[in-house]
Amino acid sequence: MRARHKPWAEDYLIENKEIVEITATDQKGKWNSLFPEEQPLHLEIGTGKGQFIAGMAKQFPDTNFIGMELVKSIIVSAVDKVKEAECKNVRLVNENAENLLDIFSQGEVDTIYLNFSDPWPKNRHEKRRLTYKSFLEKYRTILKENGQLVLKTDNQGLFEYSLVSFSQFGCKLEEVTLDLHATEDPKNVMTEYEEKFSAKGQPIYRCVVSFS
Amino acid sequence: MRARHKPWAEDYLIENKEIVEITATDQKGKWNSLFPEEQPLHLEIGTGKGQFIAGMAKQFPDTNFIGMELVKSIIVSAVDKVKEAECKNVRLVNENAENLLDIFSQGEVDTIYLNFSDPWPKNRHEKRRLTYKSFLEKYRTILKENGQLVLKTDNQGLFEYSLVSFSQFGCKLEEVTLDLHATEDPKNVMTEYEEKFSAKGQPIYRCVVSFS
Repeated sequence: MRARHKPWAEDYLIENKEIVEITATDQKGKWNSLFPEEQPLHLEIGTGKGQFIAGMAKQFPDTNFIGMELVKSIIVSAVDKVKEAECKNVRLVNENAENLLDIFSQGEVDTIYLNFSDPWPKNRHEKRRLTYKSFLEKYRTILKENGQLVLKTDNQGLFEYSLVSFSQFGCKLEEVTLDLHATEDPKNVMTEYEEKFSAKGQPIYRCVVSFS
Repeated sequence: MRARHKPWAEDYLIENKEIVEITATDQKGKWNSLFPEEQPLHLEIGTGKGQFIAGMAKQFPDTNFIGMELVKSIIVSAVDKVKEAECKNVRLVNENAENLLDIFSQGEVDTIYLNFSDPWPKNRHEKRRLTYKSFLEKYRTILKENGQLVLKTDNQGLFEYSLVSFSQFGCKLEEVTLDLHATEDPKNVMTEYEEKFSAKGQPIYRCVVSFS
């Protein structure tokens, strides 16, 4: 996702530190203590403008949510979305998924979401895809035993790649949907991309995999 | 696939026993001896009218092919297709996939093809789907170590189901394509269904899985 550079973004994140965890690595192993309730911890990697994570927090008050987004000028929009949602069960983190092991301890996370991740279609960029095996290795570490990852995308190439990558890594496919919006699911919280693409009639792919 | 009843079908199969193996169970463990050359053995389950198996036999002379089809009034068309192809590396079998273990010995088959299999969409018919675990168990037995299964279908529900079923059974996904005809593959041999559906612009799904 590209966004206009916002020179004020860094200050804005600091001003909103009740929503944004500024020194994320300090929370390693104790994320749940930041929230009012100790409850399952769900992490979205690449939270973008935050519609999904804010919507999920509102819909599932019995879960704690963390939205991770690398780009400052994008995560500021997520801050606003979380403010509007007025939920205490969601925090944001301005970090790179490369550093997951510095941010979460082993087995700290129950579920990971990847929504409309950058497909990096060129072969030479394979290692940047969030379903490349080096990322799966990190996910397996921070996820609880039998923890799950839920992936949604409109990108056919990324979905095909991810299914094979998961399987080769030893994950088990629990669910696959090749047209998420063909049947209405009131529990599905849409991302900004998802709204846009499904409105155009493009199929949205989704899968759930478990790590063991 | 439904076909008009053809009372002459049984006689026609017997008349063509240079193409149709009438007593398939007698060949268990020695299929390759029926062919001029001892070479990898590929099996299509649900051969229908035979366009795929005849086309494959023609395109890949270094492989021996067996087309299995339960319905007599359909397999007779496959007999004609194989005759036209004038290939010695293909045989047909009028048998039920339920009986695979009576027909092939352990590790006798290199590759299995499932093309446009009946999706049996109702939950109560799950056990009839050719990717239900009881069938996968049989495939694993008759396939060589690391043998592969190649599935093609236009049916979204069957494809979603099959990906999960393969994964839960412990197969590894080697390839997944969600729109086979988006890129041209001169090696792809089309079935009758495939020609019809892809001409209508429907995506054809394909996956390759390995058993170990």
